[in-house]
Amino acid sequence: MNLILVKREELVGNSVVLDDHRAKHVVKVLHCNQGDRVKIGILYGAIGTGTISAIHKKYPFRVEIETRLESQPPEKSPVDFILALPRPIMLRRILGQIAVLGVDSIHIINANRVEKSFWEAGIIEEEKHQEHLIQGLEQAVDTMPPKVMFHKKFKPFIEDFFPAIAQNYTDLLYAHPEGSLKLHETMSPNPGKILVAIGPEGGWVDYELEKFKEYGFKGFTIGKRILKVDTAVVNIHGRIMAMLDCLP
Amino acid sequence: MNLILVKREELVGNSVVLDDHRAKHVVKVLHCNQGDRVKIGILYGAIGTGTISAIHKKYPFRVEIETRLESQPPEKSPVDFILALPRPIMLRRILGQIAVLGVDSIHIINANRVEKSFWEAGIIEEEKHQEHLIQGLEQAVDTMPPKVMFHKKFKPFIEDFFPAIAQNYTDLLYAHPEGSLKLHETMSPNPGKILVAIGPEGGWVDYELEKFKEYGFKGFTIGKRILKVDTAVVNIHGRIMAMLDCLP
Repeated sequence: MNLILVKREELVGNSVVLDDHRAKHVVKVLHCNQGDRVKIGILYGAIGTGTISAIHKKYPFRVEIETRLESQPPEKSPVDFILALPRPIMLRRILGQIAVLGVDSIHIINANRVEKSFWEAGIIEEEKHQEHLIQGLEQAVDTMPPKVMFHKKFKPFIEDFFPAIAQNYTDLLYAHPEGSLKLHETMSPNPGKILVAIGPEGGWVDYELEKFKEYGFKGFTIGKRILKVDTAVVNIHGRIMAMLDCLP
Repeated sequence: MNLILVKREELVGNSVVLDDHRAKHVVKVLHCNQGDRVKIGILYGAIGTGTISAIHKKYPFRVEIETRLESQPPEKSPVDFILALPRPIMLRRILGQIAVLGVDSIHIINANRVEKSFWEAGIIEEEKHQEHLIQGLEQAVDTMPPKVMFHKKFKPFIEDFFPAIAQNYTDLLYAHPEGSLKLHETMSPNPGKILVAIGPEGGWVDYELEKFKEYGFKGFTIGKRILKVDTAVVNIHGRIMAMLDCLP
């Protein structure tokens, strides 16, 4: 936890009182005393410095912080994702990681090789997945959680929903182990926002690949090794960021 | 599990009998019948096709496979790592991921900000970390596990051990959030093997950074977001592979 993240409604004037796991973190991990400063941020808001005005260091932990919020959260990543719904434990990990990486939006969709039971998992409810996003923000010192959207049917997603967001992106890509083009051979010369589709374990089926192509997506390969979905997301995000860093 | 991985000593002629989690996988996940084929590999050896010559589909599961091993494992990645010892749960995850990515060698070292207790964890014993490497190989369809070396003292590692391996590498790099150079600004024009040092939570201390510099390492930044160590390893590996892909 590199940032104490609070909700706007927890603020009273400029001060906030914590008595949950965040108070425990301030006491037991940061070993703070009265007068010490911590990094603090408002969910969906600014980041700044908190000065500890009162602290109770024994259970039940209680910390009172005066905030001074003067900076904006870091920029979001230009890379958004479409992801075939993975198994719940994997989805939790991915949500934490895309929050750390600063991903702005992720569309989690159905695909032929997605197990139907995954759609019944609790993690797809907002209150359940929010905590993983929050942990990612606390790690990365950010206050803007990724927007997580679930689309339970593939065809309406690609045919009806996708065209409305397509113009936000300069590059539409899908990762495919059997492809022959590498990332730098598929990216446009002046990329802006980039949308990358990552398939389920076992990959997209032909119908899905055809649909992606029909809607302007280009396939690229990152080699023949079969990565787990969480590894693929982080690895591909890194690859694209490295390409963007190289641009003049 | 995209590959059934067996040890050489399990082979009798060209055949192998499985009665553990691998047999269960063949029965319950792959739903194989007699005569079906599976991808099979020998740890530290070749990869090929296994034909199921006998199968017992009820508990206790038992599968007999005739192997035909005709191809070599995939090439190793040109990127090796030096890693400050992370907490045990993180190390397990990283070992699995570097096996998936095909990393050849990883040196896990002490650093000022490594918690002493991490060195007492069971995971640093070979029999404990081997299973995570194996899972990575089964995922990536590879048979060559990364070499994992532990160095309990920083100074002897960098001053005595490191010079003996330095000539294997064209590029010596360390990741540092405070740096100003990006990856493509630090990599040599014709990179061969690359060694990347990734610090502990909280980063390397000044003494360690000075030592890395003294021995020829250059620092690079991947931005101000603070990644967890496992995210950093996968992300940086992806970034370097993308750079290498771009070379003529």
